[in-house]
Amino acid sequence: MPGNSFGTIFKLTTFGESHGTAIGGIIEGCPSGLELNMEAIQNELDRRKPGQSKITTQRKESDRVEFLSGIFEGKTQGTPIGFIIPNQDAKSKDYSHIKDVYRPSHADFTYDAKYGLRDYRGGGRSSARETACRVVAGAIARQLLKNVSIQAYVSQVGKEKLDKGYQELDLSLTESNIVRCPDPEAAGRFMALIERVRKEGDTLGGIVSCVIKGVPPGWGEPVFDKLHAELGKAMLSINAVKGFETGSGFATVEMKGSEHNDRFEEGGGTATNNSGGIQGGISNGEDIYFRVAFKPVATVMQDQTSVDKEGKEAVVKGKGRHDPCVVPRAVPIVEAMAALVLADHYLISKTNKI
Amino acid sequence: MPGNSFGTIFKLTTFGESHGTAIGGIIEGCPSGLELNMEAIQNELDRRKPGQSKITTQRKESDRVEFLSGIFEGKTQGTPIGFIIPNQDAKSKDYSHIKDVYRPSHADFTYDAKYGLRDYRGGGRSSARETACRVVAGAIARQLLKNVSIQAYVSQVGKEKLDKGYQELDLSLTESNIVRCPDPEAAGRFMALIERVRKEGDTLGGIVSCVIKGVPPGWGEPVFDKLHAELGKAMLSINAVKGFETGSGFATVEMKGSEHNDRFEEGGGTATNNSGGIQGGISNGEDIYFRVAFKPVATVMQDQTSVDKEGKEAVVKGKGRHDPCVVPRAVPIVEAMAALVLADHYLISKTNKI
Amino acid sequence: MPGNSFGTIFKLTTFGESHGTAIGGIIEGCPSGLELNMEAIQNELDRRKPGQSKITTQRKESDRVEFLSGIFEGKTQGTPIGFIIPNQDAKSKDYSHIKDVYRPSHADFTYDAKYGLRDYRGGGRSSARETACRVVAGAIARQLLKNVSIQAYVSQVGKEKLDKGYQELDLSLTESNIVRCPDPEAAGRFMALIERVRKEGDTLGGIVSCVIKGVPPGWGEPVFDKLHAELGKAMLSINAVKGFETGSGFATVEMKGSEHNDRFEEGGGTATNNSGGIQGGISNGEDIYFRVAFKPVATVMQDQTSVDKEGKEAVVKGKGRHDPCVVPRAVPIVEAMAALVLADHYLISKTNKI
Amino acid sequence: MPGNSFGTIFKLTTFGESHGTAIGGIIEGCPSGLELNMEAIQNELDRRKPGQSKITTQRKESDRVEFLSGIFEGKTQGTPIGFIIPNQDAKSKDYSHIKDVYRPSHADFTYDAKYGLRDYRGGGRSSARETACRVVAGAIARQLLKNVSIQAYVSQVGKEKLDKGYQELDLSLTESNIVRCPDPEAAGRFMALIERVRKEGDTLGGIVSCVIKGVPPGWGEPVFDKLHAELGKAMLSINAVKGFETGSGFATVEMKGSEHNDRFEEGGGTATNNSGGIQGGISNGEDIYFRVAFKPVATVMQDQTSVDKEGKEAVVKGKGRHDPCVVPRAVPIVEAMAALVLADHYLISKTNKI
Repeated sequence: MPGNSFGTIFKLTTFGESHGTAIGGIIEGCPSGLELNMEAIQNELDRRKPGQSKITTQRKESDRVEFLSGIFEGKTQGTPIGFIIPNQDAKSKDYSHIKDVYRPSHADFTYDAKYGLRDYRGGGRSSARETACRVVAGAIARQLLKNVSIQAYVSQVGKEKLDKGYQELDLSLTESNIVRCPDPEAAGRFMALIERVRKEGDTLGGIVSCVIKGVPPGWGEPVFDKLHAELGKAMLSINAVKGFETGSGFATVEMKGSEHNDRFEEGGGTATNNSGGIQGGISNGEDIYFRVAFKPVATVMQDQTSVDKEGKEAVVKGKGRHDPCVVPRAVPIVEAMAALVLADHYLISKTNKI
Repeated sequence: MPGNSFGTIFKLTTFGESHGTAIGGIIEGCPSGLELNMEAIQNELDRRKPGQSKITTQRKESDRVEFLSGIFEGKTQGTPIGFIIPNQDAKSKDYSHIKDVYRPSHADFTYDAKYGLRDYRGGGRSSARETACRVVAGAIARQLLKNVSIQAYVSQVGKEKLDKGYQELDLSLTESNIVRCPDPEAAGRFMALIERVRKEGDTLGGIVSCVIKGVPPGWGEPVFDKLHAELGKAMLSINAVKGFETGSGFATVEMKGSEHNDRFEEGGGTATNNSGGIQGGISNGEDIYFRVAFKPVATVMQDQTSVDKEGKEAVVKGKGRHDPCVVPRAVPIVEAMAALVLADHYLISKTNKI
Repeated sequence: MPGNSFGTIFKLTTFGESHGTAIGGIIEGCPSGLELNMEAIQNELDRRKPGQSKITTQRKESDRVEFLSGIFEGKTQGTPIGFIIPNQDAKSKDYSHIKDVYRPSHADFTYDAKYGLRDYRGGGRSSARETACRVVAGAIARQLLKNVSIQAYVSQVGKEKLDKGYQELDLSLTESNIVRCPDPEAAGRFMALIERVRKEGDTLGGIVSCVIKGVPPGWGEPVFDKLHAELGKAMLSINAVKGFETGSGFATVEMKGSEHNDRFEEGGGTATNNSGGIQGGISNGEDIYFRVAFKPVATVMQDQTSVDKEGKEAVVKGKGRHDPCVVPRAVPIVEAMAALVLADHYLISKTNKI
Repeated sequence: MPGNSFGTIFKLTTFGESHGTAIGGIIEGCPSGLELNMEAIQNELDRRKPGQSKITTQRKESDRVEFLSGIFEGKTQGTPIGFIIPNQDAKSKDYSHIKDVYRPSHADFTYDAKYGLRDYRGGGRSSARETACRVVAGAIARQLLKNVSIQAYVSQVGKEKLDKGYQELDLSLTESNIVRCPDPEAAGRFMALIERVRKEGDTLGGIVSCVIKGVPPGWGEPVFDKLHAELGKAMLSINAVKGFETGSGFATVEMKGSEHNDRFEEGGGTATNNSGGIQGGISNGEDIYFRVAFKPVATVMQDQTSVDKEGKEAVVKGKGRHDPCVVPRAVPIVEAMAALVLADHYLISKTNKI
C-alpha cells in the first residue's frame, strides 16, 4: 500500500535513493520456467542509462543489474526475483548546496512536508534514477509476453512535432538515432532543438508515443482496473509526466459518435481503431496506442530564485549534470511500464473463465 | 484484485449490472464518528441521474440510495457502509435486439472475449450506471474532507471551447445551467451544439475540468502511487474517458524549463502553478487542477453496420434512450472520483511520520 | 485493507451489523461460466441458521440470501456477485439494557475503545451473524471446487471427546444428528452434555475437525501465504475461535523427527500423513485436515458483574436467546472458510507456471 | 499477492533462496523520523543465527544485514528500507545428492509439483534461512513500538514441559541459557533431552510461548483481520509450525462460559484474562499471549527411504549440518512476526476515528 509496488500478480516493489548504496527491487509472480535472456535485460538498462550521447546527462552510471534470487540455471523459479543496481557514480558533494534550499518544481519541499525530513543528496527517492528498477522488471515482463510487441518513440520535443500516425512509420528505425524518433527528418529537427536549448542552459519537454501489437482480446478488468486506466497510472507515475491519452485521446472530443465509432467487420477486427485497442477497459485485439506528455526537466543551468527551509529567499545555482531533454531516455521506461501492466493482466486473464 | 475496488484505506468495492436487481457497493475505511449529511449524498446522485434535462437521456431512474449498514444514529461507525441502488426503470425488452450483435465501440465484444458470455441486457456491468455507486462513495469522502473543495465543470463540448483558466471563472455558477459550465456565454454555445447534434441522432464528446482547493502539503505517495497518477487512474476508469492531463498538461511540452518551473516565494507558496499543486507525486498546498477528455457517446440514433456473434455482418439499429453528450452528467462523477483519491491519501498521510 | 475482505483473486468483502437493515457482501473473482446450484447455497445457510434445533438459539432468522448481480441465466458472469441477507427477526428493544454496560468477553468495550462509539443493538458488527455472508460465499467457492470435498464435524464438546481419527469415521453421518458428529455414540454424549449445561444457564466450547480431500499437489504459496497459514487465519477469524492446529498439530511436539516424517512411497503419496497434506506451505495431494477450538459462548443466562461506560460496577443480566454451544452451527462456517481459501489458491495456482 | 509480502501499511516483502547470492527484503511503511538502533537489529539476527551453541546447527552463517536505502543520518526516511543478507557459508556441493530425491516432510516434492522445477541446492526458497529477513524487519517494527514489550520463550521440548504460567516466570532470564527457557530447572531438562536426541541422530519439536505487554485497547480489525487471526497467520507461516493457540487456547474448550468470561473491574481491566488480551479481534489493554507448536526438524541424521523424481524408491542419506531442535532459534522469529503484526495494526489504528 505505501506506493512502492506496482501490479497485482506480476508485481514489482522497489527501493532506493539516488545517492544511497544501491537501488533495487523484488519482482514477484513471474511464472516459473521462463528462460531469461540476460543480455536483453541489460540492454534495456543501457537504453535508459545516463551519458549515452551528447544530448543526455554526462553522468556516467554503469547501471549493472545484479540478480540475487529467483533465477537458477537460466530459468525463473516462480520465487521472487531480487535484484540490485549499485549506485556507483554518486558524488554527494555535488548536492550539499541544495541541502537547505528548495529547488523549483522538484520534490524537495513536498518530501519535507510529508516526512519532516529528507535525503538531500540529489533527488533521493524522488530521483528518476528509481526508474532503472522499472526497466529491469519491464524487461522480464517483456520476455513473458512472447507474442506482444511494445514499441515507444519520441513524437514531439518542445514545439517540434512528428506529424505522422504510427502506421506511417518504420518503428524499426527508432533506435537508429539518439533522440529515438523513427522518422529521420523529425529526428533531425528534434536533435537540433535540443542542442540549441542545451547551450542556453535551458531544458525541454516532449511526447513519447507507444504502440502495442499482439495483445489478444480479453485482457483488462472492468470498472476500476480498465486496461487503459492501468496504463495511464503506469505512465503518470513516471517522473515528469503531465498527461496521458489513449486511442483518439483529447482529439476525440471534437469527433461525433457516428465518426468515432469503430465498426466491427466480417472476418474480425474493426474498420477504424479510435478506441486504441481497448473497449470497456478490455483489449479487443486491435493495436493499443497512447501518448505521454513529459514536462521540461526542472533542473536548468541558470540561477533561479527560491526559498530555503526557513522560508527565506535563496538562489538555486544552475549546476550539475543533467539532461536538457529526458524524452529519448524515457522511451525504454514507457515500454517497461507498459510491459508490467500487460504481464499482470495476462496472468489475471488466466483466471477469468472456468 | 479483480478490479471492482478503488482505494486502499478509504476503499470502495462495487457490484451490479445495469439491468439486474440493483447496483451497490461497500465503503470501507471511513473513520468512525463522521456525522453524515444524507441529503447531500442524495443530491450528488441527483446531479448524476439520467433524465435531469432535455439534453440528457429520457430514461427516468430515481436512483435512491439505501444504506444497509455502517451508519447508526446519523454517524459512521467505522464499520463497512453497505448500500444498494435498486434498478427501477430497467426495460429488458428494449435490449433483446442486441443480444447477438456487437454494438460498435461498446464492450459487448470484449466482454464476450473475456468471459465467454455476457449479460446482454443493456451494458450489463460495462454500463455507466455503475458510476452511481462511485457518486455515493464520493459524496461520503467529500464530507470527510471538510476543508477541501472539489469543483468540476464542463470546459469543452465537441469543438466548442471555454477558453478561460479556472481562476477567471466563478465556479459557483456551474450548477446554474444544464450543461454545468460556469461561463454563461460558453454554456449557451454548448447547449446549442448539443441540441443540434441530438436532432441529427448523433453524439458529442467533451472535456471536464476539475479544481481542488485546500489540500495541505504532503498528500500522495512517491513512486507508483503519485497523487496525480492516482487521480489519472481514477478518471481514466470512468466510462468514455480517453485522456487526462494535470497542471500544465500536454501544453507543458511546448514550454522550456526556465518558464515552466514554479518558483517558491517568501511567505509560502509558488509564484506560478504549472505543477498543478503536485510535485514529485505529493501535494504542495497549491490548487490541484486537471482535465479529462470524454469521447462521444457510442450509442447513436443512426443505423450502424457491425457483426454478430458468428462474425456475420449485422445492423445495429439506432434506438433507445441515451445522452447525446455525457459530459454534464460526468461532472459529479469526476468530483466523486477525485474525492475518493483524496480521502484515501488523507488517511494514508496520518501514518507517514512517527 | 480495513479487514472486511478475505482472499485475493476469489475475494469476499462483507458488510452489516446484526440489527441493521441487512447484512451482505460482494464476491469477486469467481470465474465466469459456473452454473450455480442455488438450492445448495440456501442449504448451507440453513445449516448455519439459528433456531434449527432445541440445542441452538431460539431466535428464528430465516436467512434468505438475495443475489443482486453477477449471475445471469443461472451462470456466473465473471462480474462481482452482490448479495444481501435481510435482518428479519431483529428485536432492538431486547438490547437496550446493554447500551451502557460492557458484557464480559464480548466486544462491547473494545469497539468503544477502537471507534469511540458502537452500535449497541446486539453485537453490531461483532455479532456472529456476519458469518452468514461467509457461508454464502463459501457455498459458491465449493461449487467452483468440483473435485474437492470439504467435510467438518464436531469432535469435542466441553470435556466430552470423540477419540477417533477421521479415517475411522463415516463422515456421511455428520448431518444425521443435531450436534453434527458422525459418531452416534459421541453425538449422544455431546447432546446430553449440552442439554444439561443449557439448563444451568451456562455455555460450552468445543472443537470442530475438518477434512479436505481431492486437493491436487501444488496449491498454496511459499513463505507468508502458506496454505495452512491461510487456513489458520480463516479459522481464527471466526467468532469465538481460540486455537488452530493442522496435521499432527500440537501433538507433533512430542514426536521425534524419525517418527514424524512422512516417507514418500513408490506409486505416489506418503506412507503417513502427519504433514496434514501440506509441506512447505504447499499441498502435496494427501488429505488436508485440521482442528479448530471454540471457546464457550460468552452470553450466559446468569447475572454477571461488569462495569458500565463510566467504569462503574454494573450487572449484566442473563437474558436473551442464545446458543448454549455454537460448535454444531460452526461446522458449515468452518467448511465455508476452508472453501474460500482453497478457491483462491486454486485460481492463484493457474498463474504459477508458464 | 504472490505470498512474499506481510502486512498492509507496515509491510515486509522478501526474496532469496538459501544458496543464492543473498536473501533480503524491502520494508515499506515505516514512518519517517524513527531513530534506529542498528546494533539492536544485528543483535536480533545474532539470536536467530545458526551455530550459536552446541545444540544448534554447526553451519556458521555470519548473517550480516546491509541496509541499502531508506535510512539516512541514522533515521528512517519514510521511504522503503531495502536490505540484503549475503549467503556466505553456502556449500552447494553438500546438496547435490538430493537433486533428484524427495526428502521426507520437506518441500522438495511440493515445489516441483507447483513450479515444475526447483532450486535443489538446500531448501531453496523453502529454507528457514528466509526467516532472517523477518527478524530484520521485526527488529525495526519493535523500535517503532516503543511502549510495547514482546517476549517469547521455549515452554516445551519433546515431552518435557515447563508447567508454569508466564506470570510465574522471570522473563528476563530467557536469554541466560541456550534453550531460551526462563525457568532454569526446565531449561536443564530441555538441554539434556536435546543432547540425548542429537546423539541418536534424531530431532525434536517444541512449543514457543509469547507474551506481549503494553498494547493499548483498540488495535486489530473486526471480522477477517482480527488481531489474533493475524498473529495466528504470522506464526503459522513460520517454517515447521503446526499449531497456534491464543489466550486460553485449546484448553478453553473444557471450560464453561461462566468460568471463562473475563469480568471487567472498576478501575479498568479484567479480573481474569482468558481472552488473551483480545476481544472481538481487538486488543483490550490486557496482556496478549499465545503458544506456537513446532514439529521436529525434518532433516534427521539417519537414512530414510523415499522416492526420486521418477517415483522410484530411493534413500535419503542422513548427513549435513542441522539443528536437532529449532525452537530456541525460533524464539526471535516468533517475536519478530509478532512485532510485524503489531506495528501494522498500530499504524492502521491511526486511521480509525475522525
